[in-house]
Amino acid sequence: MTTHELIRELREPADSKIVLVVADGLGGLPLEPDGLTELETARTPHLDACVREGTCGLSIPVLPGIAPGSGPGHLALFGYDPLQYRIGRGILEALGINFPIGPHDVAIRGNFCTLDSQGRIVDRRAGRPTQEQNVAAVERLRRIRLNDVELFVEPVREHRFVLVLRGEGLGDQVNDTDPQATGVPPLPAQGHDPASQKTAQLLNQFTAAAVEILAECAPLNGVTLRGAARRPDIPSFADIYGLRAAALAVYPMYKGLARLVGMDVLDAGTSLQSQIDTLHRVWNDYDFFFLHYKYTDSTGEDGHFAAKVQMIEQLDAAIPAIRALKPDVLIVTGDHSTPSKLRSHSWHPVPTVLVASTCRPDKVTEFGERACLQGGLGQFPAQYLMLLAMAHARRLGKYGA
Amino acid sequence: MTTHELIRELREPADSKIVLVVADGLGGLPLEPDGLTELETARTPHLDACVREGTCGLSIPVLPGIAPGSGPGHLALFGYDPLQYRIGRGILEALGINFPIGPHDVAIRGNFCTLDSQGRIVDRRAGRPTQEQNVAAVERLRRIRLNDVELFVEPVREHRFVLVLRGEGLGDQVNDTDPQATGVPPLPAQGHDPASQKTAQLLNQFTAAAVEILAECAPLNGVTLRGAARRPDIPSFADIYGLRAAALAVYPMYKGLARLVGMDVLDAGTSLQSQIDTLHRVWNDYDFFFLHYKYTDSTGEDGHFAAKVQMIEQLDAAIPAIRALKPDVLIVTGDHSTPSKLRSHSWHPVPTVLVASTCRPDKVTEFGERACLQGGLGQFPAQYLMLLAMAHARRLGKYGA
Repeated sequence: MTTHELIRELREPADSKIVLVVADGLGGLPLEPDGLTELETARTPHLDACVREGTCGLSIPVLPGIAPGSGPGHLALFGYDPLQYRIGRGILEALGINFPIGPHDVAIRGNFCTLDSQGRIVDRRAGRPTQEQNVAAVERLRRIRLNDVELFVEPVREHRFVLVLRGEGLGDQVNDTDPQATGVPPLPAQGHDPASQKTAQLLNQFTAAAVEILAECAPLNGVTLRGAARRPDIPSFADIYGLRAAALAVYPMYKGLARLVGMDVLDAGTSLQSQIDTLHRVWNDYDFFFLHYKYTDSTGEDGHFAAKVQMIEQLDAAIPAIRALKPDVLIVTGDHSTPSKLRSHSWHPVPTVLVASTCRPDKVTEFGERACLQGGLGQFPAQYLMLLAMAHARRLGKYGA
Repeated sequence: MTTHELIRELREPADSKIVLVVADGLGGLPLEPDGLTELETARTPHLDACVREGTCGLSIPVLPGIAPGSGPGHLALFGYDPLQYRIGRGILEALGINFPIGPHDVAIRGNFCTLDSQGRIVDRRAGRPTQEQNVAAVERLRRIRLNDVELFVEPVREHRFVLVLRGEGLGDQVNDTDPQATGVPPLPAQGHDPASQKTAQLLNQFTAAAVEILAECAPLNGVTLRGAARRPDIPSFADIYGLRAAALAVYPMYKGLARLVGMDVLDAGTSLQSQIDTLHRVWNDYDFFFLHYKYTDSTGEDGHFAAKVQMIEQLDAAIPAIRALKPDVLIVTGDHSTPSKLRSHSWHPVPTVLVASTCRPDKVTEFGERACLQGGLGQFPAQYLMLLAMAHARRLGKYGA
């Protein structure tokens, strides 16, 4: 019996409400061996109060030692085995712009780049174009026609766009054409099986056509393609948990992840304050609320320790407004760690706090990586977090006589 | 390779003895946020000594967030995956009264109930009849004859009896006819597949015949039927572990669970003292002893915090008499938590202590939920406990060269 089957069998109706706050890349590292992490450094009186009233621990997103991307990190938090369900970047980007991905689609993340006269990449991000430049270049790409498939090109932000191929017999086992370097041309796409070879051929045709059609659009005069992917066959959040779930996210990828599992993706504005306002506004309409906070990750990726500390403190300041709604279960965690010291996602377990009236107390009094080691949740697979949320929300019946 | 295959491969003969004390529903919760749990409140000098000499931790019976019934809770402690092996309530009840369940049997838990003149349930437990009333009504039910199957009806306690259908082609995917409410008639039985439909039809005939035959036996004038189940195909304790195992339990369900896995179920009387006396008497005849203590669960289910504390203290007082036998491995744990605060089984991890001369010491000095968080066993799946018992009993060889 799978965990999802078990939940379907045991779940019970309830009026309880669950709030899952994902502070992206929350976990960190000290800069010096005897220093504090970003979270330990931050002044977090409200999160500390959550830890004292609730229980805490450290979640392991995929497996010990595995640094996850945003996709697996969030899937695990939503209760899906991230090794079973894999989501390509192209799908994430497409979902993030609300593109209706179908069963015969292959979605690809595209980047505009700047090529020199020899076709070598000079700038992998085409000078980070304005939205107007991006849209204008996308309009040109939409003129491209390929045999056998329907093409969709959609602008994202800066240098990014989404390409979708719709047609029969397309595979998604195709390499990225971005060489992750300058001074060299984009790589040719190659497929690992016949269906993917068909996709690769179409992508190479698209890339060649793009160079022609963008010839006069420098610095947006070339494209690289990444993360070709089909939509995974994934059960919905409502189907598994019977929860009416709302996503309050600012960035496209996280909206896409929520949409993938069937959450209602609400317009939550572009700030934490507007997310909280939206939470208050829709409080009676949903059972489960996924609130995504990006800035703990982006500051970590940038290597800005002090800025990450500040972003954590900003999140802490928003906790009272969430608790004012008296959620039956409040969870604050991250999808992975992003230590400023490493400037990247890492494999380190993620500080997690769960507050509910049914928590068993532990001895921890503050929210931090070291403190969470002593917490009642222990170190646990992130994909079990939703089981705990459902249990504390009194939405799971007893298993067996 | 399954865990059971691994154990069969690695197990080695030894003279060592293992005692597994299961304090049913041992784990608890504080009544107030800053209070102590039942176990933390109880004065337990002997269990505390076990913790100091041995190692402790918290076991997770099924998965985080899953509150198990007695069946899955005990199967996990016995080293069986409770999601793989499922035992219906009917089978548990039948095993508990020592009924020899065969491969073609379907066992059902029956309840006498009181019906009004319209056939609606007035009392789901028929006024909790005396044993004499129960036996007299069972005698009447034994007169019922149905086509194609042999029928067995056996008294249990109070309003409970066991019904066994023996015949070819019977399924067990049948709903409970107990509506879990009064003012309504019993539900009709329905089967989910052809074999179960045959069972359902027979159960409906039995229920109708029971109403006729019990017409003058009010308040025992109706029956409801629950937990139709066939015996699961489960490997025996002896087959897996090579242990001669004895069960010292007072309540039928726990005897049934022990019998299901092939333990010798001894007559251990009806008190903890008689269980301990029996343990001393048969000490030389077995390698493994399962001692079940019910009252930590029943007081928790009743919401009697102080009574549960007292029951824990009574168990503690019995520990020296067990240790006097010098078991090589002594384990005290529970099959699940039953916090008085929740008046029900819960998903919270279960305090566990293991004493053996091969324990690696930890820093814990008392037996309690918070203390066990710091223990050497950590938080671990209950189904691995038998591996630890076998290892500390020096009954497992090295895996691999």
